[in-house]
Amino acid sequence: MIEKITIIGMGLIGSSIARNIQKHKLAKTLVAADLSEEVCSKVAELGIADYVTNDLARSVEGADIVILCVPVGAMGSVAASIAPNLKDCAIVTDTGSVKSSIIKSLDGALPDSVDFVPAHPIAGTEFSGPESGFAELFDGRWCILTPLPDTSIKSVEAVTKLWEAFGSNVDIMNPEHHDLVLGVTSHLPHLIAYTIVGTANDLEDDIKSEVVKYSASGFRDFTRIASSDPTMWRDVFLNNKTAVLEILQRFTEDLTELQKAIRKGDGDYLYRRFDETRAIRKEIIDQGQA
Amino acid sequence: MIEKITIIGMGLIGSSIARNIQKHKLAKTLVAADLSEEVCSKVAELGIADYVTNDLARSVEGADIVILCVPVGAMGSVAASIAPNLKDCAIVTDTGSVKSSIIKSLDGALPDSVDFVPAHPIAGTEFSGPESGFAELFDGRWCILTPLPDTSIKSVEAVTKLWEAFGSNVDIMNPEHHDLVLGVTSHLPHLIAYTIVGTANDLEDDIKSEVVKYSASGFRDFTRIASSDPTMWRDVFLNNKTAVLEILQRFTEDLTELQKAIRKGDGDYLYRRFDETRAIRKEIIDQGQA
Repeated sequence: MIEKITIIGMGLIGSSIARNIQKHKLAKTLVAADLSEEVCSKVAELGIADYVTNDLARSVEGADIVILCVPVGAMGSVAASIAPNLKDCAIVTDTGSVKSSIIKSLDGALPDSVDFVPAHPIAGTEFSGPESGFAELFDGRWCILTPLPDTSIKSVEAVTKLWEAFGSNVDIMNPEHHDLVLGVTSHLPHLIAYTIVGTANDLEDDIKSEVVKYSASGFRDFTRIASSDPTMWRDVFLNNKTAVLEILQRFTEDLTELQKAIRKGDGDYLYRRFDETRAIRKEIIDQGQA
Repeated sequence: MIEKITIIGMGLIGSSIARNIQKHKLAKTLVAADLSEEVCSKVAELGIADYVTNDLARSVEGADIVILCVPVGAMGSVAASIAPNLKDCAIVTDTGSVKSSIIKSLDGALPDSVDFVPAHPIAGTEFSGPESGFAELFDGRWCILTPLPDTSIKSVEAVTKLWEAFGSNVDIMNPEHHDLVLGVTSHLPHLIAYTIVGTANDLEDDIKSEVVKYSASGFRDFTRIASSDPTMWRDVFLNNKTAVLEILQRFTEDLTELQKAIRKGDGDYLYRRFDETRAIRKEIIDQGQA
């Protein structure tokens, strides 16, 4: 049991972590901090932490582990505001969807006396806010750690144990590789979903009402993805620019080829491309990820 | 109860229709026809029709209603091969995802003595073949009819009754409008899903294996859509070219704007676009389509 854990940012992820820490009795004291008064009231009402505060700086006093669950773009400023109050040898970890840029922005902000263990749980829903969290969110899902060359093994092990207690499987990766892989599996799909729903949203009103009515034919899945938190996703794209633009370039080239095939009526090309994609689905099913 | 119904094409849709006709006792005699010997054996084994044959021409003899469930691109040649054996006043209907091109290709092929009622059930899964069908597939889903100016009201009513018996809600639309609406809700999402999974499939092997492993972060939904039947979808794109290319053009423009915003670091634009798309999701939820 850890003496004191502080979670900063009590949205979907932060509140799900709090629920896990409570459920599995992982800390003697659990502090939940959020800049928003409204979120703090909600968290107090839910009763998922021992103390709730909107004073981020004071929330980390004496904490053994501090978990940053704020949007990627807010990580640097939050780290700077808590830095003076972090105790020596505290472990700071995060849950951001992008790793390289967070490492860069926390590098200067955190004191050398603490250990930073960058982490990313591959879990979420399209809902946000403390009331959307639930203890099972991380169950059977991956959590990727991207430790730095000077991160101590002890701290990596402590964070690993935490995520395993939440029900996750932990993997280690280098940050750049993480950002590329997640660029393909998560960031590009979200960008595309936002785009396609935006395109539909810009249609004339009479067509738009029918798009809603007949959404079950494929579009519906995209609207679910595209209803994810806009602040979180704005920050992801601003902070994983290189990987996203690189993957997007390949996607656009492939889309142009398919567009050309449709225009020219090249059925063989279309069939071949549509048939190839079945293989990757089969692998996902075989690995129990479907 | 109808004397005799013939279904041509016993894949996911055809076999689900057969199951409904059997379950609700809608025909005295139900004939299932498919060019593939393998499909015919499977249908016989499943016992979902009174007669099973791979002789399409003979399968329609004496039928009151003939339901074409073959890929869009095969509709014209199937219609031509059954035309000589269709009885006077028979109703021919179909289940194709594109309406204008099917109407065009059947116009010359069918005799004037029969009534054609174009139909499109908005229902399906990513699985294909007669063993994938099930009676509940159409339950609570829309079926859109796009009757021609010379289609008799009696025939439209007969087909409407059939789909209502399957559990569907029936809507009437003009064929061009149908193709545009479905271009947005179904055809473009499928094209995009095929593209993104294809892009991932072309990645280097080491990244690809991790894309499969961490697919749960958004990509997985796309692989499900992109595992749909390649023949069916090739035909959809070849036969709804105008609407698909028109919608695709708008999509590409919107994607280019988002790409530019990422490159320039324009967070306000990204936030605004990502926030707008929530409205359409809300409408879908409000209409009980989520």
